[in-house]
Amino acid sequence: MSPIETSLSLSGERFTAVYRLSGSPSEVEVRARAICLEQTVEFPEALIPNDAIRSQIVGEVASITPVPPDQDGHVTNGLEERVEVAIRYPIEAAGRELTQLLNVLFGNVALQPGVRLQRVELPPSLLHRYGGPRYGIARLRQRLGIDERPLLCTALKPMGLSPTALAELAFKLALGGIDLIKDDHGLSDQPFCRFDERVARCAEAVARANQATGRTSLYLPNLTAPADEISARAAHASAQGAGGMLLCPGLTGLDSLRRLADDERLALPLLSHPALLGGLSLGPGHGISHGLLFGTLARLAGADASIFPSYGGRFAFTRGQCRAIANAALEPLGALQPIWPVPAGGMRLEQVPELVRFYGHDSMLLIGGDLHAGPDLVARCQAFLRLAEETSAHTSNH
Amino acid sequence: MSPIETSLSLSGERFTAVYRLSGSPSEVEVRARAICLEQTVEFPEALIPNDAIRSQIVGEVASITPVPPDQDGHVTNGLEERVEVAIRYPIEAAGRELTQLLNVLFGNVALQPGVRLQRVELPPSLLHRYGGPRYGIARLRQRLGIDERPLLCTALKPMGLSPTALAELAFKLALGGIDLIKDDHGLSDQPFCRFDERVARCAEAVARANQATGRTSLYLPNLTAPADEISARAAHASAQGAGGMLLCPGLTGLDSLRRLADDERLALPLLSHPALLGGLSLGPGHGISHGLLFGTLARLAGADASIFPSYGGRFAFTRGQCRAIANAALEPLGALQPIWPVPAGGMRLEQVPELVRFYGHDSMLLIGGDLHAGPDLVARCQAFLRLAEETSAHTSNH
Repeated sequence: MSPIETSLSLSGERFTAVYRLSGSPSEVEVRARAICLEQTVEFPEALIPNDAIRSQIVGEVASITPVPPDQDGHVTNGLEERVEVAIRYPIEAAGRELTQLLNVLFGNVALQPGVRLQRVELPPSLLHRYGGPRYGIARLRQRLGIDERPLLCTALKPMGLSPTALAELAFKLALGGIDLIKDDHGLSDQPFCRFDERVARCAEAVARANQATGRTSLYLPNLTAPADEISARAAHASAQGAGGMLLCPGLTGLDSLRRLADDERLALPLLSHPALLGGLSLGPGHGISHGLLFGTLARLAGADASIFPSYGGRFAFTRGQCRAIANAALEPLGALQPIWPVPAGGMRLEQVPELVRFYGHDSMLLIGGDLHAGPDLVARCQAFLRLAEETSAHTSNH
Repeated sequence: MSPIETSLSLSGERFTAVYRLSGSPSEVEVRARAICLEQTVEFPEALIPNDAIRSQIVGEVASITPVPPDQDGHVTNGLEERVEVAIRYPIEAAGRELTQLLNVLFGNVALQPGVRLQRVELPPSLLHRYGGPRYGIARLRQRLGIDERPLLCTALKPMGLSPTALAELAFKLALGGIDLIKDDHGLSDQPFCRFDERVARCAEAVARANQATGRTSLYLPNLTAPADEISARAAHASAQGAGGMLLCPGLTGLDSLRRLADDERLALPLLSHPALLGGLSLGPGHGISHGLLFGTLARLAGADASIFPSYGGRFAFTRGQCRAIANAALEPLGALQPIWPVPAGGMRLEQVPELVRFYGHDSMLLIGGDLHAGPDLVARCQAFLRLAEETSAHTSNH
């Protein structure tokens, strides 16, 4: 390409993506340099038409460091990445858009085996473009009037029940002391269970239970829906008295979560569900790290709580991966509120003490099917609450 | 759970998801049954509250069959899936929503290692809910006035150029005979290259070149944007004379593509880019098969052409995976138009004959950087066109 004039004059501020690669030091250097180009100009280095683009737009390798075998509890099995490469990109490349930030961080390299996006370092000048979680830990505690213990969450299911039957369940779950009662993420707007009717009936049932108990339980309908219907469903849910909202950003796009979080007219707590999205975390050696995907990115997009499949259930996340998620949900991230890690995926009542010890008081425990494994749903919810209260009274937070 | 009355009365029609699993026959049976529950009721089988849900909602295992080692050219390396399990879900579970169809097909199991979604079989009663591609192969040929040869595509880049500089490139590319000139997928609305100005200038430049050549080149701006801005950008692009649109459904959500395709006010050809989304295809042994992700699902969402990284470039897709994508783009799928497979990712001029032979005439060849590897951009585009014309004149379509 012949030289092209440019008046490019960027701030010089950069954000950092840390990738894990495997290979020999010289291989890794070549691949790191290739990522710098791939994620910005996507153009052969020799053909870049001017020095301003080369110096201001192209990513810069900041460091290449070996990864200690057990860092963050990640299993290293010979297939797994061994070297961390930190690459710095100009903040202007990501604009003010979450979609484009994701694109610069991992758009094209998501298609390459052997490159895993491990974590990011975002400067205040970039972070301040994201409102982040509206509630997070503190304001959701305030909203619920719960000072200390972990929050209790469950799902309305199974799919196939009518709105009336689900509302009956919602009533009992609230009566039993569950703090957040969400739609199962598979409930959308099916002919056998319409969204509008379900939301109206379940919100009413939970309000009625709250009247009876004097407590605050929230009902969170599932807003995962076609792109042109999410906003209308959110407005309807809010008008009907929903206490929060559930979204699967893997199905709708992560920015749909950001859009709901930024919507002043809604201002309700948001729960993120990992459907589909989580497929990017499996790796090993490629994809996005568990902590970044379920912790940092969910938080950046404005989730107040992020559901993930915990160790000890139906899925295969390790303790180390779960710890990384909880850490990313809670650790400092500019001015963004810390959010609730929500271990889930086949948790059982008997695991509550262990879960509270592992995740601490600032966690939201999601138990689904196991609450129904007895003759009295209300009593089982009460047992769940008692277990959470007792264990947290006897364990220090961490 | 105590029995709950239900008046559930579904049509009995089902759609099929075919998963690849590895393991012994008895293991596979247990896991197949677990998927039937996971993807529908997400509830322990014994606790399902009534027989109507058990018989009408829960997935059914239709078949478990061994996978021949080389079928579809997939590499089997000992890590890879060995058995195909076909599971039938009620069409009502997926409602009329692409988000929910994806959820039933692969929402939660995306989080499980060792399960790969290989292909789907959708009955007419489900397919007819999707408008699919507006242009596909035939109408895009008509729009461009090109009967027989593969289409030529390129990207405006590198990031860092001003709208004026990009428009100058667009003019030359159109002059040289490129049919579809798209924004690089990393161009969004950065401060150094605003969307509105870029679209206006590039659309004008391509129109001016079309005046000079008497040919039809289309300019396709990148609509990947925040969820609440895509529609406005699409309207602006359309008003400014854009000839089509590019979207990265991995960044925006696949349903954002469907929404654009269904929008009667736009009615422009849509090009799908694999950024981020493609991370789900890497596997091996988990994720979504290449053919389904880049072929069937892109088509179902309404893409007229689907970009993927071809063998022989900077990425690591195999010939078999590329063949599966091209097949899924072109094979019968209800009443949905066949679409253009767009091999890309570091393709070079010298590969054009080989690409035409491999992908056939109904393919769109995307060459980016390599068009700039010479002193005369227009001449190099003309060489690209000549190569495509000559090779397709000497090869039969397949």
